[in-house]
Amino acid sequence: MEIEYYRQVVERIREKNTSLILNITTGPGGRFAPSEHDPKIAGPGTLFLTPSKRTEHIAMLRPDIATLDLNTMTFGAQVVINTPPNVRKMAEVIYAAGTKPEIELFDSGDILLMHDLVRDGTIKGPHLVSLVLGVKYGFRPAPETVLYARDMLPSDTQFTAFGTGRSAFPMVAQAYLAGGHVRVGLEDAVYLQRGVLAETNAAMVDKARNIVEMLGGQAMSATGARSHLGLADAGRTTRDAA
Amino acid sequence: MEIEYYRQVVERIREKNTSLILNITTGPGGRFAPSEHDPKIAGPGTLFLTPSKRTEHIAMLRPDIATLDLNTMTFGAQVVINTPPNVRKMAEVIYAAGTKPEIELFDSGDILLMHDLVRDGTIKGPHLVSLVLGVKYGFRPAPETVLYARDMLPSDTQFTAFGTGRSAFPMVAQAYLAGGHVRVGLEDAVYLQRGVLAETNAAMVDKARNIVEMLGGQAMSATGARSHLGLADAGRTTRDAA
Amino acid sequence: MEIEYYRQVVERIREKNTSLILNITTGPGGRFAPSEHDPKIAGPGTLFLTPSKRTEHIAMLRPDIATLDLNTMTFGAQVVINTPPNVRKMAEVIYAAGTKPEIELFDSGDILLMHDLVRDGTIKGPHLVSLVLGVKYGFRPAPETVLYARDMLPSDTQFTAFGTGRSAFPMVAQAYLAGGHVRVGLEDAVYLQRGVLAETNAAMVDKARNIVEMLGGQAMSATGARSHLGLADAGRTTRDAA
Amino acid sequence: MEIEYYRQVVERIREKNTSLILNITTGPGGRFAPSEHDPKIAGPGTLFLTPSKRTEHIAMLRPDIATLDLNTMTFGAQVVINTPPNVRKMAEVIYAAGTKPEIELFDSGDILLMHDLVRDGTIKGPHLVSLVLGVKYGFRPAPETVLYARDMLPSDTQFTAFGTGRSAFPMVAQAYLAGGHVRVGLEDAVYLQRGVLAETNAAMVDKARNIVEMLGGQAMSATGARSHLGLADAGRTTRDAA
Repeated sequence: MEIEYYRQVVERIREKNTSLILNITTGPGGRFAPSEHDPKIAGPGTLFLTPSKRTEHIAMLRPDIATLDLNTMTFGAQVVINTPPNVRKMAEVIYAAGTKPEIELFDSGDILLMHDLVRDGTIKGPHLVSLVLGVKYGFRPAPETVLYARDMLPSDTQFTAFGTGRSAFPMVAQAYLAGGHVRVGLEDAVYLQRGVLAETNAAMVDKARNIVEMLGGQAMSATGARSHLGLADAGRTTRDAA
Repeated sequence: MEIEYYRQVVERIREKNTSLILNITTGPGGRFAPSEHDPKIAGPGTLFLTPSKRTEHIAMLRPDIATLDLNTMTFGAQVVINTPPNVRKMAEVIYAAGTKPEIELFDSGDILLMHDLVRDGTIKGPHLVSLVLGVKYGFRPAPETVLYARDMLPSDTQFTAFGTGRSAFPMVAQAYLAGGHVRVGLEDAVYLQRGVLAETNAAMVDKARNIVEMLGGQAMSATGARSHLGLADAGRTTRDAA
Repeated sequence: MEIEYYRQVVERIREKNTSLILNITTGPGGRFAPSEHDPKIAGPGTLFLTPSKRTEHIAMLRPDIATLDLNTMTFGAQVVINTPPNVRKMAEVIYAAGTKPEIELFDSGDILLMHDLVRDGTIKGPHLVSLVLGVKYGFRPAPETVLYARDMLPSDTQFTAFGTGRSAFPMVAQAYLAGGHVRVGLEDAVYLQRGVLAETNAAMVDKARNIVEMLGGQAMSATGARSHLGLADAGRTTRDAA
Repeated sequence: MEIEYYRQVVERIREKNTSLILNITTGPGGRFAPSEHDPKIAGPGTLFLTPSKRTEHIAMLRPDIATLDLNTMTFGAQVVINTPPNVRKMAEVIYAAGTKPEIELFDSGDILLMHDLVRDGTIKGPHLVSLVLGVKYGFRPAPETVLYARDMLPSDTQFTAFGTGRSAFPMVAQAYLAGGHVRVGLEDAVYLQRGVLAETNAAMVDKARNIVEMLGGQAMSATGARSHLGLADAGRTTRDAA
């Protein structure tokens, strides 16, 4: 969460390529680990910060997209907490930066929260949604899940569904077959195939593209995707540079 | 959570009717409310206790059934947290009391946790499951949900699905149509029909029974249900009376 | 298929009640029974007539609604055949009489034929659809079927799903829960409950209405339904009386 | 349907490769085209033969597998009719040849017929099923269909789902993702990708294998498949050569 690292990464990319779509996480800072002796006291592993702290780098760096997690759930050994009031505050900072939120949904209840956020104006369409499949304990990475969740999404939504670990490439195919976009990368999985570590994100993207093309789909350019997803034009700058 | 009240309720019922199946909640004590200024500090509304404290009354009163909630989620204005380690400890106390857990599932990730608990021996079949539909933000009370969740349940499971508020009676019908048992009562809903408050649990149960019978089903007696669900015979006593 | 009987029934009803919605079948006349020694020769049980013969009574009596079956399937011991060209011809006669077709769908392929008929202008919205569940061998009367089929229907469609035999009342509930209207009557089932024959259609309708009301729904008057379904106003007359 | 051609094809293959699994169609001979002036009279395009005629080549050539179509439906411009009595007779010939039927299901009603045939002993497990997606008017080639139909199959069934035309490769992926085997070839589709005709079946199979492997699956050898599917060992001979 070192803001200076975010800044360097963003600026180095922007120097080389202004059309590439930058999507920056706001995930860190929602982790709570109940103590064993008294669960209401935060134990080791807790990193639970205020909404404004969790979105500071977005306000400054103004990426094209920033994630907005709607989950409250166990997440491995900890608990991730995103209360509706905190989500609303984070959304406000994201929109104020001219950034589009990528709504991350980890289980079906998150979709209902999304509907409430659409209804009260917190988030505005066209919506960009990721169905996150395979985190313990959220959506199961399976064809049924993709269809069930997709059919509950608000109108005016474009979605992807992606799986963690070994479900990564099956869910690339399933998301495409269900009418969605695809997402893949080292944030979610590290193997290119059984026993073969992916050396780069690019290797995973190549394989995903290959799958989609074999199924009849096509990749978009960054510029095409900007227009398709309703993003700002290329050439955004960080706030302090403005 | 006053243990003396639990005891009085249980004993008064047992005096009059020993075959009635007693199912006692272990829900209270999992609530955490992040403070606004520093979310990792428990704020007002928090009631987050250790697993042994949350199951003390079960160890003493030894009901036929005790609930075991597998959810970690927003729940109205607070967060409910049931970490897997805490769930395991509560299950241990419940089984030690000769009590069967009613596994309460609030969203699809809870089903995956249930599978892990079955796998590691924490819970033993035949399983008794309730799909809780309508808590914000968990399962949506809808036909799709009942089918989707039912198809993910472990084998050797008997389930009901019930809806909160105005979805109570529609979900009675849906649970039955999907092959489940039904549950209804003042814990989950207060209206008998639009604008008519239910005076008693019995009035709600009568209506539910009526619906099920119109659809071709039949009610079981308490004794029949004991055998059907694999519960202990009637006549259990509290520990301190033993 | 005696046209004089149709006429008498229609006129006797219209004398007493002009607002009641009349829906007349065009089902008879699509039956083909292959001979055993040479299946391409029509055997006993065959009643397979031209589209114009099958809709003669509609042209004359001009009911509010006439059924339009899209199925080609085994149907008990025979085969029912409704080829797309014949369906188009029957639809033409129905519309020419100022009558709205009730599209009867017996399996999922029929829904795809319906889409083609919408696309080529043969049938015009708002559409009125019945999902027929339980004929051997078509749609299975089950919750899954109602959801699967409903989600494939063309837009601008109002539907019911109804079950034959003992699935009649379960499917009344399921159709309502899935957002549809309900249909019940002696054409599809004869028991009011296990072992109790229905004495009248009215008894079955009463029970269905009761179920729907217990689930939170409401019955419409004939006049309300006319406007809701986009039907002509009450007071239609037979052609020869015009 | 020239039996001599079937014989030559089978024997030429068996000369070169005895382990290859031979699956021969029994599809031809179920086509009926109603005449326009009198639909009960067979018109041009009709080829509707007795069950024994339709399975003559199976009795003689004794392939490992023979198709058994359970559909009665429109099929392009004609009607295909497979009445339950005729299906039973064809199954008898197939089993008498020591051949396993591949049950071809074109819509959901066919699955119910299959259940009845399992119940009355006409067909014996382990079952081999193909869900045929994309014939007008039968199953729609879509993820929903594969899941819906798969969940209705009898126990002790191995299935594939395959799509016709441009749905061929998407349904290869979908069948695999839903837990099925895959099928592809020039009987069902002719394009390898948009605008590129497949020169050979082998090219299509290569592509399908490629897709499955990218999703984490593996191809079986013919020998492995024989044992996995419960087929007879390699080395079957035609009856007249026996």
